[in-house]
Amino acid sequence: MNGKWLNKIKWDESGLVPVIAQEVGSNDVLMFAWMNRDALARTVELGEAVYWSRSRKKLWHKGEESGHIQKVHEIRLDCDEDVVLLKVEQVDSIACHTGRHSCFFQQFAGDAKDGEWLTVEPVLKDPETFYK
Amino acid sequence: MNGKWLNKIKWDESGLVPVIAQEVGSNDVLMFAWMNRDALARTVELGEAVYWSRSRKKLWHKGEESGHIQKVHEIRLDCDEDVVLLKVEQVDSIACHTGRHSCFFQQFAGDAKDGEWLTVEPVLKDPETFYK
Repeated sequence: MNGKWLNKIKWDESGLVPVIAQEVGSNDVLMFAWMNRDALARTVELGEAVYWSRSRKKLWHKGEESGHIQKVHEIRLDCDEDVVLLKVEQVDSIACHTGRHSCFFQQFAGDAKDGEWLTVEPVLKDPETFYK
Repeated sequence: MNGKWLNKIKWDESGLVPVIAQEVGSNDVLMFAWMNRDALARTVELGEAVYWSRSRKKLWHKGEESGHIQKVHEIRLDCDEDVVLLKVEQVDSIACHTGRHSCFFQQFAGDAKDGEWLTVEPVLKDPETFYK
C-alpha cells in the first residue's frame, strides 16, 4: 500500500489520531474514538468505521458486535493534520453502547460553582438486545 | 469553587480532556482542542470557549487575538465521561486560524492504495487581517 496520504497525518506519540464521527444529514456528533494507521486504512478499504480500541488494544470494527455499523461517506482532516472527522451513516441511528443515538447525552446545567450533568437523550434500544 | 461537576470528567494523564466545538444551528464541527479543569471552569464562568493550548502551555481564550470568540450555548459530556462537546455560536463564522469556517477543510479522495487530501473549503478572510 502506498501510504503517502497516511503520512500526512500527524500521529501522536502512541501512533494514534483522535476521530470524531458525525452523522450525515443531521450533522449530529455521534461519538469520539481513536485510530491508528491500520484502522484508518481499513476504514477506507471497507467504507465502514474501524477504530483502535485503546482499552482492548486491537482494531475495533464499530458495530461488529452490536450491528451498529457506521458507513463512511466522507473523511476530513483538520488544519493541523492531527484530527480526523468521519461523516457517517449510522445503522439503526444508534452510535452509543448505552443504546442512545449519540454518546453525548449528558448536558451541563448550573454554573461553575454548582454545576451538574443531566441525561437529556433517551435510550432507543436496550443494550441487552444487541450485546449478547 | 465546588468542583463536583468537574470531578465527573475523566481527565487524562496530563489532566486534559478532548473537546469538540460544534456550531449551533448548522451543527458543523468547527474545531477540536483540549481543556484542563481551569479551562472548562473558565468556559462556564465566561460563557465563551477557553481551551488549554498544549503548544503554548497556557489557557487560550479562543478569539482573544483574532476576535473569533466562541459563545457557548451548551456543554455536553459523552458516555465514558472523557470527551466534551461544546455547542457554540462562532463569531464571524470563522473558527480556523487559516480564515476558514471550520478546521476540517481537507477531504480524503481516492482509495487506500492511492489517496490524497483535497482542500474543499474556501478562505473567508485573510488571516493577516486578524492576526496582527
